[in-house]
Amino acid sequence: MRKTILNLEESKIREVANAGIGRSDVLAFWFGESDEVTPDFIRQAAIDSLNKGETFYAHNLGLPELRDAIATEMSHKHPSHNSGASPSVSMDRIAVTAGGVNALMLAVQALVDAGDEVVAVTPVWPNLTAQAVIMGGKLHTVPLVPLDGAWTLNMDTLLAAITSTTKLLIVNAPNNPTGWTLTTDEQRAILSHCRRTGTWILADEVYENLYYETASDGHSAMAAPSFLDISGAADRLVVVHSFSKSYLMTGWRMGWMVMPPDMTAPMGKLIEFNTSCASVFVQRAGIVALQRANEVTPRVVQHLKSCRDALIPALQAIEGLLVATPKGGMYAFFQLPQRLGISTDSLVVAKQLVTEAGLGLAPGNAFAPEANGWLRWCFASRDIARLHEGVARLQRWLR
Amino acid sequence: MRKTILNLEESKIREVANAGIGRSDVLAFWFGESDEVTPDFIRQAAIDSLNKGETFYAHNLGLPELRDAIATEMSHKHPSHNSGASPSVSMDRIAVTAGGVNALMLAVQALVDAGDEVVAVTPVWPNLTAQAVIMGGKLHTVPLVPLDGAWTLNMDTLLAAITSTTKLLIVNAPNNPTGWTLTTDEQRAILSHCRRTGTWILADEVYENLYYETASDGHSAMAAPSFLDISGAADRLVVVHSFSKSYLMTGWRMGWMVMPPDMTAPMGKLIEFNTSCASVFVQRAGIVALQRANEVTPRVVQHLKSCRDALIPALQAIEGLLVATPKGGMYAFFQLPQRLGISTDSLVVAKQLVTEAGLGLAPGNAFAPEANGWLRWCFASRDIARLHEGVARLQRWLR
Repeated sequence: MRKTILNLEESKIREVANAGIGRSDVLAFWFGESDEVTPDFIRQAAIDSLNKGETFYAHNLGLPELRDAIATEMSHKHPSHNSGASPSVSMDRIAVTAGGVNALMLAVQALVDAGDEVVAVTPVWPNLTAQAVIMGGKLHTVPLVPLDGAWTLNMDTLLAAITSTTKLLIVNAPNNPTGWTLTTDEQRAILSHCRRTGTWILADEVYENLYYETASDGHSAMAAPSFLDISGAADRLVVVHSFSKSYLMTGWRMGWMVMPPDMTAPMGKLIEFNTSCASVFVQRAGIVALQRANEVTPRVVQHLKSCRDALIPALQAIEGLLVATPKGGMYAFFQLPQRLGISTDSLVVAKQLVTEAGLGLAPGNAFAPEANGWLRWCFASRDIARLHEGVARLQRWLR
Repeated sequence: MRKTILNLEESKIREVANAGIGRSDVLAFWFGESDEVTPDFIRQAAIDSLNKGETFYAHNLGLPELRDAIATEMSHKHPSHNSGASPSVSMDRIAVTAGGVNALMLAVQALVDAGDEVVAVTPVWPNLTAQAVIMGGKLHTVPLVPLDGAWTLNMDTLLAAITSTTKLLIVNAPNNPTGWTLTTDEQRAILSHCRRTGTWILADEVYENLYYETASDGHSAMAAPSFLDISGAADRLVVVHSFSKSYLMTGWRMGWMVMPPDMTAPMGKLIEFNTSCASVFVQRAGIVALQRANEVTPRVVQHLKSCRDALIPALQAIEGLLVATPKGGMYAFFQLPQRLGISTDSLVVAKQLVTEAGLGLAPGNAFAPEANGWLRWCFASRDIARLHEGVARLQRWLR
């Protein structure tokens, strides 16, 4: 086997979860997944399709109805700020993929030759950096810097790292694990710099709907700032989305990407050679999820906000613990009190929390070395009391 | 975008199919897919799972129950000829993937560094050679040679092409499109040569159940000869399978690979970074398909044999047309009469057949330059009369 593949890091999150195998008393918040089943009307759409016998191959890029529904949704969320373009995202820029992670992998396959320079903002979901390494890319990471518990971007550092030899910038905002989000002004600065250097941007925006800020008019913002808000169709930009988080569809493995229109046909070939197509019955469920999004997503976002607003103050009440309120996503990312007797290795601490406290969290060093000492808590819990019980377990363990 | 990706050939099969868009009068035999819906009890297993709410992430490598069922099936089909090993294929060698094509892509990702030498036997399904190119491999093809309509392997030529610098041999038998199959003796010769050169073998055996020969005891053979029959667990061998053909599950996008046990954990990481996992409800359908295989596969194989035995003699009756009876697979691969007025470019002919004869076939040069002048006919047709009607259309067009 390739050394590159053997050297890929094992998931530290899975290592922690493994420490909990066979222990029914563990409150698990380690994975990035709601504990709520997909709404029944979405499941019913797949069942209807199966009953109708839609069990054949489909178009590489996805069903036209689904691509059209996605384009409409994207255009609605991101009305073009550029003059004249309407709708802002047309369906010839959309490909349906086997999950958001698959869309990211396909984009990296399309863009990164062996030896190409890739810049990634970290801490980040480890899949995003692994994909470039699998394709033989040379990875350079630009770490966010923690400031009173909030991880923040130093724009000068980032822009200095992106030169004319940088093939691809990978950025995930709202960010897993830190909750860091980009502002529209920051996106503008990054895009205009990357236009100068000829660098592609791969924007993982799967958490865009899980955004808790209010817009300038006082209403809830429809979505986090997106590179789609400020770019044109011809920009070297791929934006990746998923059905997983906004529609409670993690196990369905369906996502999509928005790309420049002349990239779409080659992307169809890549999909053919990777997975051929998404299952029609899964795509039917996706169409219904988008059509009836207002019956799912606002409720999910509202509930996640309640989860966040329960968990963060409870964590902040723990002396010496550092945590900021995330603007988006579904994670609290916090630094434990720095005390004698608490390991500085997040992985060690996370395993101890499982076996000694019955609390399952993800270790910060799963996301970047600079996040060692930190822990990620997924607050997507149907029952908010579970979060309070988790905090109580953490407090008991700290004492 | 990478030049490598832009240069990947568009599917010539799809180009032909596009020529038929909007024409309801075309008899289409271009794609490698039965026209029969997945059996209802397999669909019901997915429906039951969806109703139970199995909509969450699953293990990267697949559900243990499914991996176990696959290992049992593989061990049953390929009882070890090596002393002592029992069962011959253990479940720690199995990974469930998003289709056979995805298993092949993952294997190539695991094995081929940019610049590595890859040998492939052609003509072959174009995906198999494209994957190595996507990973930056240097592809060397070894063509089969047509002999009275039957494509045959020159073993000396193949073995001479595989040297100690060859990282990977890619071989698909029973072969799409030619129907060529490997004998056990040939597999032994290839394996023992590759053991000497340290070359990995990637064996696409997805058609192994669609095999029409009788075994030495006079009964139908259970499966085509497989590299699993003659190898040990530690051999540098990855065998790829799919639910698509044997269980009428093309649109489900589920397959698997059998690999050396120490490759399985790294493969789990690659799956995480490509698609994360297969959907649980799809895997439940796979478990039922294997459990009740005797209600599907023998009937499918028997019917395909009837299709083959209807189509091949009808084609052979056309003067000047060259075709051999395939031992396996679901394709008749034939050379048109070499006459003035018939283009020597298969793609041109295939498009003419669509528009002028209402007959949809795949062009031979979609599979290799040396197969130009040939056409592939998928005989997986529920209604055998469609095949006869197709032949009649071909005859009319030739006159």
